[in-house]
Amino acid sequence: MNEIFENTSHQPSWKLASRQEHLEDTGFQVGSHLIGAGNFSIFAGPCAVENKQQTLTIAKSIAAAGAVVFRGGAYKPRTSPYDFQGLGEEGLDLLSEAKKETGLPIITEITSVDDIEKFMDKVDIIQVGARNMQNFSLLKELGRLTIPVLLKRGHAATIEELLLSSEYILSGGNENVILCERGIRTFEPYTRNTLDISAVPVLKKLSHLPVFVDPSHAGGKFWLVEPLSKAAMAVGADGIIVEVHNDPDNAMSDGDQSLTLERFDSLMLTLKKLAPAFNKTL
Amino acid sequence: MNEIFENTSHQPSWKLASRQEHLEDTGFQVGSHLIGAGNFSIFAGPCAVENKQQTLTIAKSIAAAGAVVFRGGAYKPRTSPYDFQGLGEEGLDLLSEAKKETGLPIITEITSVDDIEKFMDKVDIIQVGARNMQNFSLLKELGRLTIPVLLKRGHAATIEELLLSSEYILSGGNENVILCERGIRTFEPYTRNTLDISAVPVLKKLSHLPVFVDPSHAGGKFWLVEPLSKAAMAVGADGIIVEVHNDPDNAMSDGDQSLTLERFDSLMLTLKKLAPAFNKTL
Amino acid sequence: MNEIFENTSHQPSWKLASRQEHLEDTGFQVGSHLIGAGNFSIFAGPCAVENKQQTLTIAKSIAAAGAVVFRGGAYKPRTSPYDFQGLGEEGLDLLSEAKKETGLPIITEITSVDDIEKFMDKVDIIQVGARNMQNFSLLKELGRLTIPVLLKRGHAATIEELLLSSEYILSGGNENVILCERGIRTFEPYTRNTLDISAVPVLKKLSHLPVFVDPSHAGGKFWLVEPLSKAAMAVGADGIIVEVHNDPDNAMSDGDQSLTLERFDSLMLTLKKLAPAFNKTL
Amino acid sequence: MNEIFENTSHQPSWKLASRQEHLEDTGFQVGSHLIGAGNFSIFAGPCAVENKQQTLTIAKSIAAAGAVVFRGGAYKPRTSPYDFQGLGEEGLDLLSEAKKETGLPIITEITSVDDIEKFMDKVDIIQVGARNMQNFSLLKELGRLTIPVLLKRGHAATIEELLLSSEYILSGGNENVILCERGIRTFEPYTRNTLDISAVPVLKKLSHLPVFVDPSHAGGKFWLVEPLSKAAMAVGADGIIVEVHNDPDNAMSDGDQSLTLERFDSLMLTLKKLAPAFNKTL
Repeated sequence: MNEIFENTSHQPSWKLASRQEHLEDTGFQVGSHLIGAGNFSIFAGPCAVENKQQTLTIAKSIAAAGAVVFRGGAYKPRTSPYDFQGLGEEGLDLLSEAKKETGLPIITEITSVDDIEKFMDKVDIIQVGARNMQNFSLLKELGRLTIPVLLKRGHAATIEELLLSSEYILSGGNENVILCERGIRTFEPYTRNTLDISAVPVLKKLSHLPVFVDPSHAGGKFWLVEPLSKAAMAVGADGIIVEVHNDPDNAMSDGDQSLTLERFDSLMLTLKKLAPAFNKTL
Repeated sequence: MNEIFENTSHQPSWKLASRQEHLEDTGFQVGSHLIGAGNFSIFAGPCAVENKQQTLTIAKSIAAAGAVVFRGGAYKPRTSPYDFQGLGEEGLDLLSEAKKETGLPIITEITSVDDIEKFMDKVDIIQVGARNMQNFSLLKELGRLTIPVLLKRGHAATIEELLLSSEYILSGGNENVILCERGIRTFEPYTRNTLDISAVPVLKKLSHLPVFVDPSHAGGKFWLVEPLSKAAMAVGADGIIVEVHNDPDNAMSDGDQSLTLERFDSLMLTLKKLAPAFNKTL
Repeated sequence: MNEIFENTSHQPSWKLASRQEHLEDTGFQVGSHLIGAGNFSIFAGPCAVENKQQTLTIAKSIAAAGAVVFRGGAYKPRTSPYDFQGLGEEGLDLLSEAKKETGLPIITEITSVDDIEKFMDKVDIIQVGARNMQNFSLLKELGRLTIPVLLKRGHAATIEELLLSSEYILSGGNENVILCERGIRTFEPYTRNTLDISAVPVLKKLSHLPVFVDPSHAGGKFWLVEPLSKAAMAVGADGIIVEVHNDPDNAMSDGDQSLTLERFDSLMLTLKKLAPAFNKTL
Repeated sequence: MNEIFENTSHQPSWKLASRQEHLEDTGFQVGSHLIGAGNFSIFAGPCAVENKQQTLTIAKSIAAAGAVVFRGGAYKPRTSPYDFQGLGEEGLDLLSEAKKETGLPIITEITSVDDIEKFMDKVDIIQVGARNMQNFSLLKELGRLTIPVLLKRGHAATIEELLLSSEYILSGGNENVILCERGIRTFEPYTRNTLDISAVPVLKKLSHLPVFVDPSHAGGKFWLVEPLSKAAMAVGADGIIVEVHNDPDNAMSDGDQSLTLERFDSLMLTLKKLAPAFNKTL
């Protein structure tokens, strides 16, 4: 057994995700940008794509500030069937327009195997949300693709379960997986979830895959995004995925945790200044 | 607002599942058996269908003991891609044979929208497992059917989220939903999950739908099944779904929590004796 | 190793509490009443002793209904220093009056080693609340007494930790310990705590000590008390401790979860009718 | 209401701890060192004081590396009564010797009101451990002192409950309270606790008190101490309290999470290099 595992209590049942046989950090290209491998990558954009003006305004602003991937939800998994479910295919088209205007690759969430074909042409990174982390039939299908997948930890999933879910994708042949810590469910009511910051160094030790943090869903409050993003960089994450909105007060979802364009600019400046102290490029 | 809600803190965002506009308990027919409406129904069978001999042996035994629905997994959602994933369609066929031999209706878990057609001919109740409780695209498809659905609570889902997931099925037109408490994730390591027994009376107050308990997955130990089943009946549940195996020591999954055929016989006798004290028919 | 332990994963580090060397259930006398040993004992009374009229009204009513021990808080551990902290010694005196009037033994909570002397004359069972379950210096002192101790499980304590805390009392020489499950902290917001009903059969398997349930603090709502009490009896508990108030709407604490006198009468009738089905005397 | 609270959902029931009427960060002197007010303070030392050689070796080494307070347990609250309970008064004397040798102020944990007098002469900061966070009779007594108190968050205490516990000390007149996040209990088994890193910026927003992090108890593994310490600094903490041992493999408690002397030296160098990026002095 490799030295790196001598202090772990688990017999690693994950294989392809494991650092044991793959000591180097994995990095891969998305558009012209390299994920992992010393880069600290910022993905940003609105919770949901709402309309053309909103989408393009945000995309241009975050591109100018230095974000490298544009995020936006077209198919929204909502707790209630009576809540806004996203614009669907129209949303994907708006994301494509944003890509044309800004050059930024697109990440958006998939909620059904049936949508894979639509995603293949228009999406650069497919996001699997917390609720689908153990939707194994979806993971198996994504394993057949080469498009990178950002896999969010389920809100009550253990670190081991997250790695085993990534294994479903990797064992299908798709090597481009990003793990994402986004907060877990605990008894603490003040924050939307409890960001399990320790999961980042644990995942980096157990696996060679890039590890991201979602400070927006973790804290659930816009003013927590900056401190949690700094913590993510300090603890060794490879990037963050952040919610930004041009008008949070009137956002169709997640307004409370969305940064304004100005606050995102300020976050970028802060992180750029910090990056050298952590040997990160941003 | 109806009197029944005056002590609840939540504004009910579920509608069709709510008892507010539907004061009577919902009951519905599965084969010749009535679910809900004063019946305490026992669903039993192995975690996974393994082969013909195992399937028929268990089915005949639990039928003789008085179970009303035969359960068995054909498509198994497993944490690791390297674990046994179930027999798939062959498993469904074995379940059909068991039904032919015993007359018992069949319940089995669905893991993908793509399998719905296969299920429609062969399955009497479709089970949605804890991991798919918020697989909304699956729930929407099940809402288009009339086959009853047993919806398990996710292991970190709130009671409100369970009701809202049932609403996805109900609002599609399928009125035959059974809610199932199967234990939630907590810090306690002794049991596999923590059975949230209070969820039963809470669900019965908030909703008119039948409520089941899964004592096998909750406790994770065979010797907890009997006390937890008695607690389920005492607290007002409409039935239980129990794992039974003819050879638990060699079961392909969940052997620790499976009852032997003899222990299941004994459980049935115990519950039959208790039922009158709780005004239940069994 | 005794057969009873063959299916437990823990090496029992508790000794005197363990059933391994003490196969028989422990029972002990409180006043003329026997705790454990086939009895299902009801302790009842207000969260806090507020005044003479309230105390005596409740005590007489619950005595008439068949409760065997009167509970009432004199020293209240409150989350905020600005909340009502209990009547202190005056409260103890009111409890003594209630005992004189009704003949019921008294249980009340201790919050400090310094109060032990006052308790020794006036209290029949000393309650250690959830917040003090690991106040080891208090437990050690209680171990030097012979007065029975009801030890509540901390709201994030494991079953093993509860047993080890009881071991602090037992190893001091005090053999009269009652374990009490009162709900643990989880992510579920609907109930005040999540009653871990499985803890009862687990504790009964691992230990010979009597096990009680507190359905009032577990659920936090008066209408949950009856179903949870029935579940407690069904699952094998030796008794319950219940909050009752003559005027819940104006109670100084815990009004939401307190039964009225009438509702307590009705609960007693229900439990008396059920007891024979569970081989319990009440 | 002050602007700083406009985005908090809680009506602050804490008063003296609140930032609302006390906008400036609180700082106070311990020996010649200032806690808070822009300093990032490192407290370090063994879990338990074991003997003179161990104590002095560690104290001298961490002093040389730049720690500002020496920590060491003399009275150990242990889950089992059969585990090492600390050297007691002899331990306090060893801590005093370490202070004489190194000049470092001493922090050690109190477990009983009865020990306060002994602590007053020999201890510079009194630590209240997680298990005693709601031992209100102890908190009230500490409120009568002027010695600073480091109050650890209980392992299932909410942020609000931690603030209200600090209020017990502050309202007694003792203004010198340090809040300490040390990990909470969740379902995740890989780490000993889950460090709630968000609690730091939340506490800094809601309160003027200094906020520390305990990366040793949070992670439970020595190799997590450095990344978690960096995260603590990045997120805005005022210091950390770290376990260091000259021979972790043979430590009487908490060896797995203790840094060697060399690893602590290396941690200090790392933190000193990072401090300027976060406007901290160390």
